Amino acid sequence: MNHAELVDLGQQLRVDSVRAADAAGSGHPTSSMSAADLMAVLLAHHLRYDFDRPEHPGNDRFVLSKGHASPLLYSAYKAAGAVDDDELLTFRKLGSRLEGHPTPQRLPWVETATGSLGQGLPIGVGIALAGKRLDHADYRVWVLCGDSELAEGSIWEAAEHAGYEHLDNLTVIVDVNRLGQRGPTRHGHDLDAYARRFRAFDWHTVEIDGHDVDAIDRAYGEAASTRGRPTAIIARTLKGKGVRDTEDREGLHGKPLKDADEAIEELGGPRDLRVQVHEPPSARSLHAVGDGSLELPRWERGEQVATRDAYGHALAALGTARGDVVALDGEVGDSTRAEFFAKEHPDRYFECYIAEQQMVATAVGMARRGWVPYASTFAAFLTRAYDFVRMAAVSGSGINLNGSHAGVSIGEDGPSQMGLEDLAMMRTVHGSTVLYPCDANQTARLVATMAGLDGIRYLRTSRGESPVLYGPDEEFPVGGSKVLRSSDRDRLTIVAAGVTLHEALSAADSLDREGIPVRVVDLYSVKPVDRATLREAAEDTGCLLTVEDHREEGGIGDAVLDAFLDGRPVPRLVRLAVRSMPGSATPAEQLHAAGIDAESIAASARLLVEEAVVR
Amino acid sequence: MNHAELVDLGQQLRVDSVRAADAAGSGHPTSSMSAADLMAVLLAHHLRYDFDRPEHPGNDRFVLSKGHASPLLYSAYKAAGAVDDDELLTFRKLGSRLEGHPTPQRLPWVETATGSLGQGLPIGVGIALAGKRLDHADYRVWVLCGDSELAEGSIWEAAEHAGYEHLDNLTVIVDVNRLGQRGPTRHGHDLDAYARRFRAFDWHTVEIDGHDVDAIDRAYGEAASTRGRPTAIIARTLKGKGVRDTEDREGLHGKPLKDADEAIEELGGPRDLRVQVHEPPSARSLHAVGDGSLELPRWERGEQVATRDAYGHALAALGTARGDVVALDGEVGDSTRAEFFAKEHPDRYFECYIAEQQMVATAVGMARRGWVPYASTFAAFLTRAYDFVRMAAVSGSGINLNGSHAGVSIGEDGPSQMGLEDLAMMRTVHGSTVLYPCDANQTARLVATMAGLDGIRYLRTSRGESPVLYGPDEEFPVGGSKVLRSSDRDRLTIVAAGVTLHEALSAADSLDREGIPVRVVDLYSVKPVDRATLREAAEDTGCLLTVEDHREEGGIGDAVLDAFLDGRPVPRLVRLAVRSMPGSATPAEQLHAAGIDAESIAASARLLVEEAVVR
Repeated sequence: MNHAELVDLGQQLRVDSVRAADAAGSGHPTSSMSAADLMAVLLAHHLRYDFDRPEHPGNDRFVLSKGHASPLLYSAYKAAGAVDDDELLTFRKLGSRLEGHPTPQRLPWVETATGSLGQGLPIGVGIALAGKRLDHADYRVWVLCGDSELAEGSIWEAAEHAGYEHLDNLTVIVDVNRLGQRGPTRHGHDLDAYARRFRAFDWHTVEIDGHDVDAIDRAYGEAASTRGRPTAIIARTLKGKGVRDTEDREGLHGKPLKDADEAIEELGGPRDLRVQVHEPPSARSLHAVGDGSLELPRWERGEQVATRDAYGHALAALGTARGDVVALDGEVGDSTRAEFFAKEHPDRYFECYIAEQQMVATAVGMARRGWVPYASTFAAFLTRAYDFVRMAAVSGSGINLNGSHAGVSIGEDGPSQMGLEDLAMMRTVHGSTVLYPCDANQTARLVATMAGLDGIRYLRTSRGESPVLYGPDEEFPVGGSKVLRSSDRDRLTIVAAGVTLHEALSAADSLDREGIPVRVVDLYSVKPVDRATLREAAEDTGCLLTVEDHREEGGIGDAVLDAFLDGRPVPRLVRLAVRSMPGSATPAEQLHAAGIDAESIAASARLLVEEAVVR
Repeated sequence: MNHAELVDLGQQLRVDSVRAADAAGSGHPTSSMSAADLMAVLLAHHLRYDFDRPEHPGNDRFVLSKGHASPLLYSAYKAAGAVDDDELLTFRKLGSRLEGHPTPQRLPWVETATGSLGQGLPIGVGIALAGKRLDHADYRVWVLCGDSELAEGSIWEAAEHAGYEHLDNLTVIVDVNRLGQRGPTRHGHDLDAYARRFRAFDWHTVEIDGHDVDAIDRAYGEAASTRGRPTAIIARTLKGKGVRDTEDREGLHGKPLKDADEAIEELGGPRDLRVQVHEPPSARSLHAVGDGSLELPRWERGEQVATRDAYGHALAALGTARGDVVALDGEVGDSTRAEFFAKEHPDRYFECYIAEQQMVATAVGMARRGWVPYASTFAAFLTRAYDFVRMAAVSGSGINLNGSHAGVSIGEDGPSQMGLEDLAMMRTVHGSTVLYPCDANQTARLVATMAGLDGIRYLRTSRGESPVLYGPDEEFPVGGSKVLRSSDRDRLTIVAAGVTLHEALSAADSLDREGIPVRVVDLYSVKPVDRATLREAAEDTGCLLTVEDHREEGGIGDAVLDAFLDGRPVPRLVRLAVRSMPGSATPAEQLHAAGIDAESIAASARLLVEEAVVR
């Protein structure tokens, strides 16, 4: 396209953005108008993309980090012939593919769900890293950011990661329109404020007028030809550009234009330019091939092994069998044991340093490219990345997360390092799977099983050693459980998992010696939960006692109730969990202080069996 | 102290760090040894602090962002005469004040709990901001960071905030010891890599040898005299400094020294230097005085008001009555309505831009200085700051958080903007209070009540308007509920809050017309929950139906069960919640699609009453 056509295309994208928001009665046209020229030039001259084959391995990847500018994205899809005008006007309506914020669940060309600001760039970094180090493909990753979202720390985790990894296949385009939702940004139109920050993180930067299509064209060319570092194009733009009543004005964020018809006329009226988007270069989907036969590590019953150790060994074995498995860690691989994978498969191991948001974002980006990521850190520190986990679920992303050092049983390090909220946090994520093994063979099996599940899969591991309970060939279906103590005289059922399962067994043995037989269920699958077994236990024993090394809200106790929340009779229930703020102490002292050790379990069981619960 | 004495003090801090970790059998002596000279000079020459009066308003504030270096902190306390040698050797033992990671719950001189890396600087920024803009005091804030933790995005949110606010009362000391937990950091001893990043965020920087006490002394002096910008002192150090077997060596993180006696000898043996820490300048505790009499806004029954509007108006009124109330927002004050406070009390309003971690950190810092912060953003985006909320609970910090735009009922913006996990996330935080009002008068009362509670207090508000149900003088105690429909013939109890409470009332009215009387409970206090009322409802009606605009895990349904988890008989229970991934649609369409509108509630109630639940 020549200069005039590019200008015209920019106006068309504005007009269509205004029209879409007007039809919807909501949306963000002014945020779309500022970036319209940036998008027009990208689409017409630089993006290499086959809209008929979004899975094409050579496709460039475009990420709209400022997801609220979705009218612009959809207008670009229309210009590329991917959606028609009728569909454009379904924007934000029930059942439409064109949501308020784009998601790959609905549209095949969307790489990742955005709308929580500061996520598009980190995930773009993950895709670019996959391009460089896994796919070995020449695709470029283009990320369009707003200026407001550069206040998010996740942006600078991403900038650090991209600069350090020399991701010259990555370009961020910053739409510096000066206005956030409620008013001016910190730096207004001071382009250098942004440029010098990116430069400090070892990026190449270009400052341009974001409404000068020739300058934009040159900047994209410069980005594409820059070697050894990512490029940030810092573009001065005007929010609401092109319409006198909206241009550079405050108070117009997230609202359709007052007079859409007049605005469209001022923008030169509707157009129907069609862009012939460049074909992607040929490329092949290249997943390093594993040897195919999975040989998980095996432990003998009675061996003392930490589940985190089993995680590391199993992941390394899985990596040998499957060439598409990759591992990431947040600078604690010696603790989570992700280092076992790193040693065997250094080419598929990604050190994310202490940047949990970027770690999860990288996993999401790599999953989008077809890789099967396992990301690990302390369970406590996954709280740092919760918004990324939440949004990964919106994307329908399939990622494996491992949280180690769960619970008070880590011992002396104290509450800052104890994952005590992780089960609650992960269970409430839509479509998640939450697994919590108690022994090494179980851990190994679950690590392998996770790879084949949909959505967010979370595995909780423990710091300390525990005895191996299961043989290496035992199977552990997701949604299952194991009944480890059972008789037809059971007075009560203890439900536990992980560390507390061992305490529960010990308590059951004591109680048995006292003539109080109790059932013990290993609830290794916390979500989905084994409803049949729990219901049977409830019918047989009438009372369930749950025990968990977790806060009382949202963990195993609540998970057990999922089996009974459909109006059926509910058994009597007692929940043992961590109710106070721990300090430093040994693991045994911690379990005792929290009232979740064998002694506390046995004491509670006795009370319940005697129906001597005093209120 | 002269040069030799400072050197000696540094060695003493090393010796005591080694001794403490040796006595504990765990801990981080090598991370303490790298920063010992930095700490020695600060304590002896620059810190102005009265250990007998930690509440002294003129005290400098020291934050150990690298919380694992706690042996160094406690050794410094010993050198200052605040703890004795016997106590030093209780490090990490059950009941000791000297935890693995320091917390203000145990020690009065600790400003904030650390141990989750990347939090000390953001919270230090909050304290420094309080010093400048609230306390109007001359105290300095000194933050000791590790180099590894500079990978956290939260550090750069803090750097941006501090630079923009010209916090020249803030100094960060970066202990660049080159080694993280599992190996080298990204930038090793490249001091300039860190310095140019801080400079890009408008900080003054000084690069020094962190073992040269004279250089350290000069750098602290330069920091204290620098005006208009915060200072970052980037100090080259060696991990394990002073002992040949540990100095600059990998693989020794978080472990006591192998031969402590030999190391102590190599460090010159135990010493007993006592530091006379500088007295703080006189200062007075200066909380702007309010007019004392709280006049909350009042609405008439039947008016249509969004609870977010009520939040903003009530907060503004509270700010008038109480001079210690401050408000913070993450660049969505026009949506959360925090802007109402901003207009009335601009001097106590803090725009945190799109940086939720820094927003919560600022609140924690200000709460530490005696202010009563209310921090607001979309409920969905509080997930971004979850680790900060978790750690605030470890600190015992008293902060108020408001999450607006809860649930699918926000409508067209779609799932990225919908708070659907917030109740679960907040309920599982230790000691938290979780409130979810359904009308304007209730909201106003709860906003005022929150100020007086302990710990993390969370208020969930809604985007859309709803009718005012309660009179303006109605009281809403925390831990209470309101029974809005009741008879002695009730067949069922519907428990709801917020948006779904209105749907529940509408369903109850339909059911009543059909001859099915049901009870309706407004569970505005989600945590703590009103056990007595729920138990009575269970006894009277036998069956509870919970309805919430939230994921099914961890919200109102689970909260209701808290009333029954002590072994008592449990009523039949059914939980209606959001079970699928929403898209864009109108609020009414969303509630219907999620099965939580009046129609769905009535349908479920009919089934339950007919005991026609088929499994």
